[in-house]
Amino acid sequence: MERLDFKKSQEVLLEDSLGFILAEDIIAKEDIPAFNRSTVDGFALRSSATLGASEGLPTLLKIVEDIAMGVVPKKAIEVGEASKLMTGGMLPEGADAMIMVEETEIMGEDLLAVYKPARAYDHVVEIGDDCKKGDLVFLKGKRITPKVIAACASLGYEKLMVYIPLKVRILSTGDELLAPGEVISLGKTRDVNSYALEALCTNSGFEVLGKSHARDDKEEIRKALEQDADIILISGSSSQGEKDYLAEIIDEFIPGLIFHGLGIKPGKPTILGSDGKRVLLGLPGHPVSSYIVFKALLEESLRELYGLEEPRYIEAYLAHNMPATPGRTSYQPVSFEAKDGLLWAKPIFGASGNLSVLAGAQGYFILEDQEEGALRKDLVRVYFLD
Amino acid sequence: MERLDFKKSQEVLLEDSLGFILAEDIIAKEDIPAFNRSTVDGFALRSSATLGASEGLPTLLKIVEDIAMGVVPKKAIEVGEASKLMTGGMLPEGADAMIMVEETEIMGEDLLAVYKPARAYDHVVEIGDDCKKGDLVFLKGKRITPKVIAACASLGYEKLMVYIPLKVRILSTGDELLAPGEVISLGKTRDVNSYALEALCTNSGFEVLGKSHARDDKEEIRKALEQDADIILISGSSSQGEKDYLAEIIDEFIPGLIFHGLGIKPGKPTILGSDGKRVLLGLPGHPVSSYIVFKALLEESLRELYGLEEPRYIEAYLAHNMPATPGRTSYQPVSFEAKDGLLWAKPIFGASGNLSVLAGAQGYFILEDQEEGALRKDLVRVYFLD
Repeated sequence: MERLDFKKSQEVLLEDSLGFILAEDIIAKEDIPAFNRSTVDGFALRSSATLGASEGLPTLLKIVEDIAMGVVPKKAIEVGEASKLMTGGMLPEGADAMIMVEETEIMGEDLLAVYKPARAYDHVVEIGDDCKKGDLVFLKGKRITPKVIAACASLGYEKLMVYIPLKVRILSTGDELLAPGEVISLGKTRDVNSYALEALCTNSGFEVLGKSHARDDKEEIRKALEQDADIILISGSSSQGEKDYLAEIIDEFIPGLIFHGLGIKPGKPTILGSDGKRVLLGLPGHPVSSYIVFKALLEESLRELYGLEEPRYIEAYLAHNMPATPGRTSYQPVSFEAKDGLLWAKPIFGASGNLSVLAGAQGYFILEDQEEGALRKDLVRVYFLD
Repeated sequence: MERLDFKKSQEVLLEDSLGFILAEDIIAKEDIPAFNRSTVDGFALRSSATLGASEGLPTLLKIVEDIAMGVVPKKAIEVGEASKLMTGGMLPEGADAMIMVEETEIMGEDLLAVYKPARAYDHVVEIGDDCKKGDLVFLKGKRITPKVIAACASLGYEKLMVYIPLKVRILSTGDELLAPGEVISLGKTRDVNSYALEALCTNSGFEVLGKSHARDDKEEIRKALEQDADIILISGSSSQGEKDYLAEIIDEFIPGLIFHGLGIKPGKPTILGSDGKRVLLGLPGHPVSSYIVFKALLEESLRELYGLEEPRYIEAYLAHNMPATPGRTSYQPVSFEAKDGLLWAKPIFGASGNLSVLAGAQGYFILEDQEEGALRKDLVRVYFLD
């Protein structure tokens, strides 16, 4: 999809960036922390001065400053001195450690008893200890999660460059389709694909411009394909049946029919075309097939386009032998089971049109057609379904 | 949180339900499919009539109907007859199988040659094969994902009852805090928590009403706490330092201080109060601590409240020995590594305030204080961090 100029970026506020994909590398612009920072409430001091301090023989220090939060200390610490400092505050010059308030006692106006020796850098985060100026923290292509937002906030990023979500239109075709709310009648089937594809698109970070239903009518489908979008997803009307006009229409309108018929199972009737500006993807009519083809084809394309690094699969041991389908790559739905410290993938059997198979599945693995099948205890890559 | 009447529900359109939590059980209201459905383009026939059919000696059948999509067939199939039918269409009475169009040839106006025997129910999904009327498909408390939407569409659910998201206000306190866009100065620290907590809340399905920053000033904090919300999250101002007014303020305003000080690490300075209408949760000021306390406390409360069943952890083998902290439950950040078919959890060491620790972590595991520590190859439950 690269040559279609699908990688446009925009700047968004950090607080609006959740779920987008980073279009810039995130680099530390400053040391974090920028100063030696206390991690406790207590007193900043020179650790060497507390050598041998004990309950019976405390070290006595002069309190020279009560350092407020967020300010630079005014006084450097000399031998025999200490300054009061709270968690998160800046250590004064000359101090190399904190002693917790619980280990001390204020004896007079400015006299502090320290009952325990402090070691150098006790309860102190040193300059640059979290992050050094110039450190590469995140590579572009990363999905922005709460963790990314937390780190970017600490690095002083008020705005982030993100990829503009691709705009998708969804079209379900078929005379037999009813909306979920309609009264069912014999021979009809409910339109699942436009709802499922809309949710999948939203989940993957596409922007859904609209979804609609067209009857098996050339003119109706043609019209729906004229709308503006980056990607048009059409489900149904793409198998080799007589009323499957889609390939025909794409051929008429757009010279760029890329392929028709995918060597995968489910999902044989998949069609992909482009007019150089938009991608048209014809998905199978069967809800489970189109769901898996979306995951395997569209989500994977997105990963490649942006170099997304988030894990899409997890390795698990296959719980049963699985035969391969000659000449076709199979996408086998599975559920997970943890047993004996191992993660098992249990194949769910059932017709590829059965939504109960999808509802019960947590992922799928790919069985290549050149393989003879997979055996129990083979390690397989299970791709997530949600 | 149950007694605070936090489980209110509302009806939303199926297409607007992504990410909400189901507040009703989803039950099949009809058989799916409601009729014997073809999974191929071809001809409906009686399988018994094709016994012995071959390339050399095809069975000849009379085509009695061309069945359109979405309609009830008009003619029942007698011995010696077939009807043309497309994928997804309804089998006529009398027919028990489909033969694919590729295995046939039309010989005359209504004469069909079948070159291969069909077995009963070949390429047919039977009534109720996917789902039977009355089947319990999803239990309430399930997060609505694309898969759930697909299944609910097929079951004819136009609307779903979902829990109304809890409304949250976020307050960061501290004189030392700067917004990400401000120029850093010595002694100051950037406000990470309000950004991180907002993203975490959104991700978990809370509705964020607003986030703000208050200085370490009683009146300012008091005012911020008067706003309407189900949950108020306050970070900072909750350790035992002198300027930590929070417990005091909560005590003045609200009699229901539930606890102050959690036996977990990080997260010792955690405070929880309630006035019977709202929950006030005081989180640690350290960004990593407050992040983990949010996950461990608030997300887990949400799970309990709604009976959420989504997996929150995955089992993995610990890659190093880990000592326990006496008297405190530790939340140890880890990253994953797959090796030898096993999933390993590698502890990430570093100060609990270090965001680089958080950025590099994929999850955490809980080390109880009564344990002596955990050993390499112990199986630990790793909770996800995003």
